[in-house]
Amino acid sequence: MSSEQLNSTIKKNRQTVYSYIDKFLSKDHQIDELRQFYQILRDYPSRPSKGLRAALCSLTCETFGGNSHDTIITAAGLELFQSWVLIHDDIEDDSEFRRGQPVLHRKHGIPLAINAGDALHGKMWEIILGNQRILGDQKTLLILANFRKMLNETTEGQHLELSWVKNQRWDLQESDYFLMCEKKTSWYTCIAPMRMGAIIAGADNEIWEKIIPLGAKLGVAFQIQDDILNLSANKEYGKEIVGDIYEGKRTLILINFLKKCNSKEREEVITILNKPRSQKTINEIKRVVDLIRSSGALEYAKKTAMNLTNELKHNFEVIFSNTNPTESKDILRELLDYLVSRKW
Amino acid sequence: MSSEQLNSTIKKNRQTVYSYIDKFLSKDHQIDELRQFYQILRDYPSRPSKGLRAALCSLTCETFGGNSHDTIITAAGLELFQSWVLIHDDIEDDSEFRRGQPVLHRKHGIPLAINAGDALHGKMWEIILGNQRILGDQKTLLILANFRKMLNETTEGQHLELSWVKNQRWDLQESDYFLMCEKKTSWYTCIAPMRMGAIIAGADNEIWEKIIPLGAKLGVAFQIQDDILNLSANKEYGKEIVGDIYEGKRTLILINFLKKCNSKEREEVITILNKPRSQKTINEIKRVVDLIRSSGALEYAKKTAMNLTNELKHNFEVIFSNTNPTESKDILRELLDYLVSRKW
Repeated sequence: MSSEQLNSTIKKNRQTVYSYIDKFLSKDHQIDELRQFYQILRDYPSRPSKGLRAALCSLTCETFGGNSHDTIITAAGLELFQSWVLIHDDIEDDSEFRRGQPVLHRKHGIPLAINAGDALHGKMWEIILGNQRILGDQKTLLILANFRKMLNETTEGQHLELSWVKNQRWDLQESDYFLMCEKKTSWYTCIAPMRMGAIIAGADNEIWEKIIPLGAKLGVAFQIQDDILNLSANKEYGKEIVGDIYEGKRTLILINFLKKCNSKEREEVITILNKPRSQKTINEIKRVVDLIRSSGALEYAKKTAMNLTNELKHNFEVIFSNTNPTESKDILRELLDYLVSRKW
Repeated sequence: MSSEQLNSTIKKNRQTVYSYIDKFLSKDHQIDELRQFYQILRDYPSRPSKGLRAALCSLTCETFGGNSHDTIITAAGLELFQSWVLIHDDIEDDSEFRRGQPVLHRKHGIPLAINAGDALHGKMWEIILGNQRILGDQKTLLILANFRKMLNETTEGQHLELSWVKNQRWDLQESDYFLMCEKKTSWYTCIAPMRMGAIIAGADNEIWEKIIPLGAKLGVAFQIQDDILNLSANKEYGKEIVGDIYEGKRTLILINFLKKCNSKEREEVITILNKPRSQKTINEIKRVVDLIRSSGALEYAKKTAMNLTNELKHNFEVIFSNTNPTESKDILRELLDYLVSRKW
């Protein structure tokens, strides 16, 4: 299995799913303001993205013997979930860039952006209700139930992260970070896409349950890699580099650094991170990044991600032991590897 | 039919629906931050509210021969819709008070409040998915489709209103206001509650369609009454008095005033209304209110609401002509009257 094959599979799948989204979202309206409204809804889904969640759903379905065509609507719903959550997330984190462009609320103001996120959230439910046509009533309701579970976990995780920043919490342990990532990242990035792929393929309940710990680890390793890239990425990354420092995010890297550093460094870093974005100077940001980089915390995070990867690969082989050795299975295996070691 | 009977029916129905919501929303969590999260989700649904949408749904169901017990979950979903929309609406409008207390984001900050709105939005879908147990798969999916339609109309209407303020639009006609109200208010306050009551009772498609123009007029008259109360209400009203002036809302009253006033008054009022909330002085607000009150625009709005009420009463008798003359039908008729003439 070559990485070219993986890339072309992800790309082809992304094209199918995003062309479905493109047809689904209105392009025009006779009223000027509502034409603008639908243009705003199309903004984030039109920006470059990898379509990893859609690929994970489709490949899991195929590996369990299902037809990936049956996952298009669900995968489109997952990608719309990502879009509306990011619109609100960018306001909550006071971010500047998303997928290489200014965030939505810096283009249209916070009120219109909150409302656009809500509208796109509604469009997500609308799109997955369309599953009735291809999956029938029962599977459609199962997919809806998975979306509501995913949303509940994501908002819990988001609350954890936001309230840590708001309440200036610095006494966090690795286990707090793992829990936050499982909720904030794993559910919508890994667990739900894989579970719904399995459901659509007709795999049984036992499989759905076993996917949870696999997807949980995959999501945490994915998030750790995201945190690492944020401190070191090139411009292909799309988000603002060192944005996590500006936003005061409690990453595994930071938690490990605070464990390793001396009390003077700790005080210095916490004082800077507690400041609101607008009061952080470039030199302060550089100082924090230098201290973190020279502490070995990045290497520690890489090692943790690698350990998780080894564990989840074992989970994968157990859960998928009864599936045939197909090309889809090989590509799925490759995708798991890519998720935890991607460079952007 | 006495207004005491109407009041006691609304109150009893509200109690049933809100006790369902109370049991449905988590009260506790072993993690401190998530305990706070669920407390925040319970905030708006715990504040005093009238439960008008729940009553409209339940009474319509009964009038069409259905059992109001079957509407509890749907009515609870409607009330949760109202709660999460108001959380986001209060941020978008930069409001200060809601249901007699400070708005959510002034208690917890914008990031946690946006996320709480999203979480409660998710809880709304979760609660209405519970309809499977009492209504079966098909009716549940019909209810879900009505919620997604209602949400689409509401966000379109909200975009209209917000972009008029943002773009300092002052060239609006009555027809613009009516369209905005139908989308922003009528769908979730009147059309969807009544349609879903009819669906649950087993009324046929033809009825669902006929409810749209009835509910559209009812919602517009309701909104006009809300605008009137905002300029004149006592403290029972719950919202900030003259909040519409602070927020620069394009109400029918204002549109009519701008048509009637001279060019000097027009310029004066527009200059004040274009200012952001924080730059409007109390004297400026008072001046705008005085000008509006003495222009006759309030009386014009009252007359418009009355005309709409007469039309919708006629619609009501036609649509409900085949239903039996029950107590529910009398109370529903009384409720329509109350909605357009309430004092708070």
